[in-house]
Amino acid sequence: MVGQQYIRLLDTEPWFEISILVGKKSAGKLYGEVTEWVGECDPPSYIKKMKVEEQVPLNSDVDLLFSCLPSDAAKEQEGLYARSYPLVSNASAYRMEKDVPVLVPEVNSNHLGLISAQKEGRGWKGFIVTKPNCTTAGLVMTLKPLDDLYKIKRVIVTTMQAVSGAGFPGVPSLQIIDNIVPYIKDEEEKLIKETKKILGRIKDGSIVDNELMLAASCNRVPVIDGHTESVYIEAEKEIDVEEAKSSMASFKGLPQELKLPMAPEKPIIVMEGSDRPQTRRDRNAGSVPGMSVVVGRVRKGLDRNSLQYTLLSHNTIRGAAGNAILTAELLCKLGYLER
Amino acid sequence: MVGQQYIRLLDTEPWFEISILVGKKSAGKLYGEVTEWVGECDPPSYIKKMKVEEQVPLNSDVDLLFSCLPSDAAKEQEGLYARSYPLVSNASAYRMEKDVPVLVPEVNSNHLGLISAQKEGRGWKGFIVTKPNCTTAGLVMTLKPLDDLYKIKRVIVTTMQAVSGAGFPGVPSLQIIDNIVPYIKDEEEKLIKETKKILGRIKDGSIVDNELMLAASCNRVPVIDGHTESVYIEAEKEIDVEEAKSSMASFKGLPQELKLPMAPEKPIIVMEGSDRPQTRRDRNAGSVPGMSVVVGRVRKGLDRNSLQYTLLSHNTIRGAAGNAILTAELLCKLGYLER
Amino acid sequence: MVGQQYIRLLDTEPWFEISILVGKKSAGKLYGEVTEWVGECDPPSYIKKMKVEEQVPLNSDVDLLFSCLPSDAAKEQEGLYARSYPLVSNASAYRMEKDVPVLVPEVNSNHLGLISAQKEGRGWKGFIVTKPNCTTAGLVMTLKPLDDLYKIKRVIVTTMQAVSGAGFPGVPSLQIIDNIVPYIKDEEEKLIKETKKILGRIKDGSIVDNELMLAASCNRVPVIDGHTESVYIEAEKEIDVEEAKSSMASFKGLPQELKLPMAPEKPIIVMEGSDRPQTRRDRNAGSVPGMSVVVGRVRKGLDRNSLQYTLLSHNTIRGAAGNAILTAELLCKLGYLER
Amino acid sequence: MVGQQYIRLLDTEPWFEISILVGKKSAGKLYGEVTEWVGECDPPSYIKKMKVEEQVPLNSDVDLLFSCLPSDAAKEQEGLYARSYPLVSNASAYRMEKDVPVLVPEVNSNHLGLISAQKEGRGWKGFIVTKPNCTTAGLVMTLKPLDDLYKIKRVIVTTMQAVSGAGFPGVPSLQIIDNIVPYIKDEEEKLIKETKKILGRIKDGSIVDNELMLAASCNRVPVIDGHTESVYIEAEKEIDVEEAKSSMASFKGLPQELKLPMAPEKPIIVMEGSDRPQTRRDRNAGSVPGMSVVVGRVRKGLDRNSLQYTLLSHNTIRGAAGNAILTAELLCKLGYLER
Repeated sequence: MVGQQYIRLLDTEPWFEISILVGKKSAGKLYGEVTEWVGECDPPSYIKKMKVEEQVPLNSDVDLLFSCLPSDAAKEQEGLYARSYPLVSNASAYRMEKDVPVLVPEVNSNHLGLISAQKEGRGWKGFIVTKPNCTTAGLVMTLKPLDDLYKIKRVIVTTMQAVSGAGFPGVPSLQIIDNIVPYIKDEEEKLIKETKKILGRIKDGSIVDNELMLAASCNRVPVIDGHTESVYIEAEKEIDVEEAKSSMASFKGLPQELKLPMAPEKPIIVMEGSDRPQTRRDRNAGSVPGMSVVVGRVRKGLDRNSLQYTLLSHNTIRGAAGNAILTAELLCKLGYLER
Repeated sequence: MVGQQYIRLLDTEPWFEISILVGKKSAGKLYGEVTEWVGECDPPSYIKKMKVEEQVPLNSDVDLLFSCLPSDAAKEQEGLYARSYPLVSNASAYRMEKDVPVLVPEVNSNHLGLISAQKEGRGWKGFIVTKPNCTTAGLVMTLKPLDDLYKIKRVIVTTMQAVSGAGFPGVPSLQIIDNIVPYIKDEEEKLIKETKKILGRIKDGSIVDNELMLAASCNRVPVIDGHTESVYIEAEKEIDVEEAKSSMASFKGLPQELKLPMAPEKPIIVMEGSDRPQTRRDRNAGSVPGMSVVVGRVRKGLDRNSLQYTLLSHNTIRGAAGNAILTAELLCKLGYLER
Repeated sequence: MVGQQYIRLLDTEPWFEISILVGKKSAGKLYGEVTEWVGECDPPSYIKKMKVEEQVPLNSDVDLLFSCLPSDAAKEQEGLYARSYPLVSNASAYRMEKDVPVLVPEVNSNHLGLISAQKEGRGWKGFIVTKPNCTTAGLVMTLKPLDDLYKIKRVIVTTMQAVSGAGFPGVPSLQIIDNIVPYIKDEEEKLIKETKKILGRIKDGSIVDNELMLAASCNRVPVIDGHTESVYIEAEKEIDVEEAKSSMASFKGLPQELKLPMAPEKPIIVMEGSDRPQTRRDRNAGSVPGMSVVVGRVRKGLDRNSLQYTLLSHNTIRGAAGNAILTAELLCKLGYLER
Repeated sequence: MVGQQYIRLLDTEPWFEISILVGKKSAGKLYGEVTEWVGECDPPSYIKKMKVEEQVPLNSDVDLLFSCLPSDAAKEQEGLYARSYPLVSNASAYRMEKDVPVLVPEVNSNHLGLISAQKEGRGWKGFIVTKPNCTTAGLVMTLKPLDDLYKIKRVIVTTMQAVSGAGFPGVPSLQIIDNIVPYIKDEEEKLIKETKKILGRIKDGSIVDNELMLAASCNRVPVIDGHTESVYIEAEKEIDVEEAKSSMASFKGLPQELKLPMAPEKPIIVMEGSDRPQTRRDRNAGSVPGMSVVVGRVRKGLDRNSLQYTLLSHNTIRGAAGNAILTAELLCKLGYLER
């Protein structure tokens, strides 16, 4: 699923081109023969004709690897590849390592500062940068401007997550038609840990977690793409609703400044309609479809220091391949891919 | 919709029988001709042959009226009928009146004490008892034993509500297939007000609202029946998770004591499976389908005094007709229907 | 899935009780620990506590086996068990064997006459009776009275099949939400062959296929339970629409005559409403939920000898476990289970 | 719904621009205030700011009107407007008039020859051209090359139609989640009549219907966009499957020859995968999303002269606004819009 989303997005992305496809089970065959393409239309024809390789040769002229290996394989494989190549990973294997950034480029581009220590400490020529879990990406984007203004203390979040988040074959239809499953394995733990790390600050060359506390309830719902999150926050300072909205609406990061191709003009789109954001209607809103987080229903919480809102984030774009490609563009622009 | 659920449930309920059907638009026609039956199978055949009346004659021998009038019509009509008849109402028109109970029979049967004052104050021979909004019914049931033990201070709840809650035709399919709508008109306000009233105490013949504070986010999701609610509570006292679970699992009320026909053996079913309750699978759990609230994922919150859990409540049974019929059974058993 | 449906239906069926559960992967464990129960509520508690066995001992006092083995395992295993036991099979492995009946009890109970030849020819003490594919069961039921009256020549059928027909995990949600898949592997072939066999006649101790011709297009659609089939037939004789309807509405078979517990009063329910049968609304219509085939929209075809209609059949009840249990009841009543 | 699709498509179409919006109920207000936009994202901002007019002034410089009036209003209003303007209509009101073409531009562009007689006979300066019902558009496109080669005698078609075909609010969610409705009012009659007309030939200045016979069963299924049709045809001549496929795959019409902007390179895309076309995956296939009809599962029927296949056609694009805009482009290119 995520690999397919990479192929789709990179097909029109201007800076990168796919020079090698690697897959264990399908090695030696043509991509067009082995893929069970689940998205709209078919893969681009030049990709269908590419042979899937068993591994990347260690001395190729590839500039960057995107990895969407399963967690268990990622630990070993990604480490091997990082000896030679810059690697942007979808897997969770290295996310919690002290010297590895979990990047949402608009939020914590400063964490790329860890790379040099990572290379040195591990004796790698390449390095690993990870992207967060699909649920985390949308949440941290909206928390960032609020934390900057009000210093967030507690977050209580309930998610309603799309089936594409579980990959393919993923969620059986018998488990989700006319049904909600109030649990997604390991999701709440990842959401909590990653949010604290991404919103953390660099101190003495490593990340100090943000001290906010999170409680999360993750639910699977019968929608194809787009995670909706109902968020309640409490902050140290008093929150003004209009100011909070405008801090999100005007939020920008390094990708916008550098005009990276995958960077949406507005990382956060704040909607005024009382019944927005809606999954199917809004998941592709903005200048780069699927890359903006859409926020609505921003309103007071139970006291002066609290706030409620609903966010929608496209889980396979901002929550996966799109965020990783934006990260790669940032690495490229900042010179991290130069040899 | 709710009228149809009454017909379905009363068809097998042992104490009551339907002697008159009243409807404005369909008056004069046979029920079988005018109803757009949306549930499984067809209406019972004796009901299909009943003529719909324009109104209940004021001196009939009817013992009780169930009203599921639209809000605006309810204010006037229900007041008229209550001059002559006991009336259990689905409408919100009278819910917030000081002398009218909003009843969840297991939770606040003591509020029936308001009836005598209501009759006296208004000069009615009959009276009005209301049932809460479908979202409130499930929530207050689970809050009651916890409030008794720990004195709840704050509740933060996110709901995922079934389309049947919007009646018929209700939610257009174009608005809900592969979609979530993060807003239901007036729902959050009702949930907040009603919960405080139902959990309130009687003082000097009227209800003093419970002082807990609620924040609610109500969402419409693509399921047929069954409202799921993700609940976070903070209490005055420290909460022990196992004790909290057992207080819910063993919770009983007057309906269980009196062995009313519509009373489920367990008003709250606590499930242990990590991925329960699930809407389609669990909405009819328990000895009286649709009447039990099913709770799962009970776990610690962010501090010692807080708790998280997920509940599922059947919105057209416990959340509507079923709760109203149980209320009627309670009124009957306690002698309120005697002339 | 089918095994679960057996457990659910046998829990209330009066003639049989489950004395042994057999499963390869789960052998040695308790059923409650290994089953991924996908239906409503939970398995009956006595079943949850039963240990799953690796196989049925060959000299037990079990009267009958229900097999829902996967096709490949069925060929060998069912043959082994049939040496000792009567066996009613859900699998397709033996369906096309000349001496094995594919039974829809109302349609071809006379095919049970093959059993004695089967036992003799194979040297078995037991025997195998199969039930047809879920799509076939509904179709042959409606074709039977029409073939008797008009001698059907050609059938053109398009199916819209529920996801439960594919078992568990079965159809991935990503493949069926907001989607139709116009193909189900091997389904059309089975539907064609089985229909001809079931409607065939016995001649000289074996079945001569019915000579009607079938063209089938099988589609997977996003509904949970219930296969809808749009049927066009051409016959040798002129068809009177009203007569055709009443022949279906009054159709009965041996199970109705013998008043078998799982036999619905009306094997075929003919509905008059222009928009019926509807899947969710009508799949459980009739005196034994899920056992009646519901027919609607009966109307003329393109010439005097042709007819069109829509049918709905519950795929996991009449199309699987329910039909098999009814078959077992028939075998029991007719003395085939006596030792 | 259809109006919204016009706005979306015309926003990028190069030849036309929207100069006036007309609506009865919303007259006098801004479009952005009155529309209940149901598609992805929001309407273009210049459209949101346009005032909705009560009617088109009879002497404006508008070149062409697109009408998507409800059937009853269309009869009168469209006739009035056609006195002054060329009008392309979505409504069924004029479709069956002898001098009014029902156009699928690739199939029957020669029917535009009726326009001069229509203007003369009715004394209009303008004229009316209609587009067919959404279900007809896809079917006739695929029948055209087959009829040319084999002379079709009979067509038996079962449709599985998307909810967007019913407009907004359209199909209630309670009627379609986990459900199929085997009936759509007037749809089968329209499909039958329109197909015969569109495939008819011009003789002595009017259309002689094609003599093929159609039987249709129309079903509503829970998908958002895209009508799937399972087609069985019988022809006068023997059909070679491979030839039939290549006749569809290579089918082109005047719009392709004239390189009209909305004309897809391939009006019919023939897919080889056994499980294609799939609704969500293929409804936007081809060079102009939603304008190609996608065909799959082409295979023999019951005899040499028959053929089966499945088609998918985007109901709000090729089946509505897209087909109408392509018609307008054809009218423009052929000089029909000149004054």
